[in-house]
Amino acid sequence: MSFAPFDWIDAEARGRAAAGLVRTLRPRGAEPELLDLASNDYLGLTRHPEVIAAAAGAAHRWGAGATGSRLVTGSTALHARLEEELAAFCGFEAALVLSSGYAANLAALTALTGRGSLIASDAGNHASIVDGCRLSRAETAVVPHADPEAFEKALRAHDGRALAVTDSVFSVDGDAAPLPALAEVCRSANAALLVDDAHGLGVLGEGGRGALAAARLAGGDGIVATLTLSKSLGSQGGAVLGPARVIDHLINTARTFIFDTGLAPAAAGGALGALGVLRREPERAARAREVATSLYGRLTAAGLTAVRPDAAVVSVRAPSADAAVRWAADCRAAGMAVGCFRPPSVPDGVSRLRLTARADLTEEQITTAVATVLATAPRQADARVS
Amino acid sequence: MSFAPFDWIDAEARGRAAAGLVRTLRPRGAEPELLDLASNDYLGLTRHPEVIAAAAGAAHRWGAGATGSRLVTGSTALHARLEEELAAFCGFEAALVLSSGYAANLAALTALTGRGSLIASDAGNHASIVDGCRLSRAETAVVPHADPEAFEKALRAHDGRALAVTDSVFSVDGDAAPLPALAEVCRSANAALLVDDAHGLGVLGEGGRGALAAARLAGGDGIVATLTLSKSLGSQGGAVLGPARVIDHLINTARTFIFDTGLAPAAAGGALGALGVLRREPERAARAREVATSLYGRLTAAGLTAVRPDAAVVSVRAPSADAAVRWAADCRAAGMAVGCFRPPSVPDGVSRLRLTARADLTEEQITTAVATVLATAPRQADARVS
Repeated sequence: MSFAPFDWIDAEARGRAAAGLVRTLRPRGAEPELLDLASNDYLGLTRHPEVIAAAAGAAHRWGAGATGSRLVTGSTALHARLEEELAAFCGFEAALVLSSGYAANLAALTALTGRGSLIASDAGNHASIVDGCRLSRAETAVVPHADPEAFEKALRAHDGRALAVTDSVFSVDGDAAPLPALAEVCRSANAALLVDDAHGLGVLGEGGRGALAAARLAGGDGIVATLTLSKSLGSQGGAVLGPARVIDHLINTARTFIFDTGLAPAAAGGALGALGVLRREPERAARAREVATSLYGRLTAAGLTAVRPDAAVVSVRAPSADAAVRWAADCRAAGMAVGCFRPPSVPDGVSRLRLTARADLTEEQITTAVATVLATAPRQADARVS
Repeated sequence: MSFAPFDWIDAEARGRAAAGLVRTLRPRGAEPELLDLASNDYLGLTRHPEVIAAAAGAAHRWGAGATGSRLVTGSTALHARLEEELAAFCGFEAALVLSSGYAANLAALTALTGRGSLIASDAGNHASIVDGCRLSRAETAVVPHADPEAFEKALRAHDGRALAVTDSVFSVDGDAAPLPALAEVCRSANAALLVDDAHGLGVLGEGGRGALAAARLAGGDGIVATLTLSKSLGSQGGAVLGPARVIDHLINTARTFIFDTGLAPAAAGGALGALGVLRREPERAARAREVATSLYGRLTAAGLTAVRPDAAVVSVRAPSADAAVRWAADCRAAGMAVGCFRPPSVPDGVSRLRLTARADLTEEQITTAVATVLATAPRQADARVS
């Protein structure tokens, strides 16, 4: 018998090539070469001198790594301070920092549910939520997007522990979840509500305190939030926020917390630095939303189809995966980076350009961005009909 | 109906308290206060001036965060260089860097298997491997620890794609997997072999090139390795190493790669700095192994039961979970940090002290460490009988 356990990979690669779905890495240089409308650096903080100094200073003071699990040698006073500040900023009793937002969602979903539990999960939720549901061994009901009645029906059909989970702002289309209605549904069904505020922190709520603060739900008894430190806060890592007993429960039971190395000091320091800038300059949050509204208004006025942005993501429809890839490549050739979402990263199979509205874009840059997207737009009618 | 979706958590917390299994975070200060035999900083690089300077320098040059998925804006030339150097150092064709070793294991297991596949997984494998198996939707056969015949039996019973997965060095007991025999079993069954070298990189092989280089398996057709950058390399992150087509496949399909923010530049820079030190000072690897052998020899000579170390982890048996906790606390009171593994973190229910043999421990520190462990050892007979 021949030894070739990975030969099947070549056939799959050919299939992707034939479908125009090959993904490749395109490493960038240290100096920005393109106008950035693709990153998740919503507040423009990842290159802020204070944030960089905080990251570098933490490496010097605490070392390059955390050296172990948070339960062994990996907890520092820096992690504790970040957890206190995140909880206080967002209005929760306690917080727990993990190495990524992905790990935070896996932690919350696996620790707060289990066999015999029900998870009601929005059909548009992020991959890390989908994976958390799978790992949890709970029964998962995937409910139609942003539909509180569907959540209610799923939760009421279950006898036992239940949890509803939703993104606050959906990454692909930039639309917001109906949080007040979902919270009411959960309250009436005695279910917990877990909200991934990855795209809401720093953008929604007074001074960027997030979607749950904006909905006056932060700190509620049955409310848990997950965050990422790698978007508005310009760093790396994730967090779970909630009642103190929930956080204690995660410390004791969440496998992606217990069995992972603690977040590197530089990442914790960078996130703390970004929180400090955001507290002092709360207007950055509103500015990110204004930029998004401006991009949306100008692009749709010119005939493109886009989703009205609830936060800092503007999603523009493309007629096909191929057209989306060409469109993004043409933008790049014209000096601008945009996101390009296509199957299998889009729940509905519709390809999109994804523009992120950074708070630090100037009016001139916004005008350039709009002109570039319009000049490179595919000619197909279905891309231009609102 | 009252709204109290987390009341069940209190009952679980009471159960843990009654069983003596409460875990709490103990944040440390910036200056080392204890002799460290608990971290995974095997080579003593996390506070090496060159590693810290590389981490801080990367934050200054590249920003505090990667700003997005590696497939959108999160790939930098720094990530590409780290991937090239890791692959070259360990003897593989290509490498892919992720935000943690946990994410690397989830990526490799989910992307390289799937429904209809079989995974044969060692009973002592790390939690991240267990979770990767669960997420993969493959059939998983958990086989007895370090038993190539059991792997063979499981692999031969399956008709279709198959993969064997093992830690190279098991975290709890510090024993090594029988890699040459496992590779032979995989070759004869046309199965892939995935080896998590988290505790082997930097310690095993010539100059710390890892367990697969030591076994002359690195770079083989059906061989894939996962690594962490947070142990010997003193930083944060993880990596998958293997044939180029396997790495391309992961870039295209691995959810914990595609849907996660890229590793922060400071962490990538720190790992590169550590690789540079290790290339220049290859004797650090052998020294870590010598320290482990020395600790093992002196502790067992004094009557403690320990597992002969194959790398840099020395695992000493405790008579009970309570005794292990007290033993570790007494070590701490005497000025030394040691790991304490107890249920549910140990596969066999046996609690242990876990000592890590750092390459930079002095003879005097080793003598102090041995004296402290012995002076605080529980009196129970079963802890002292070899």
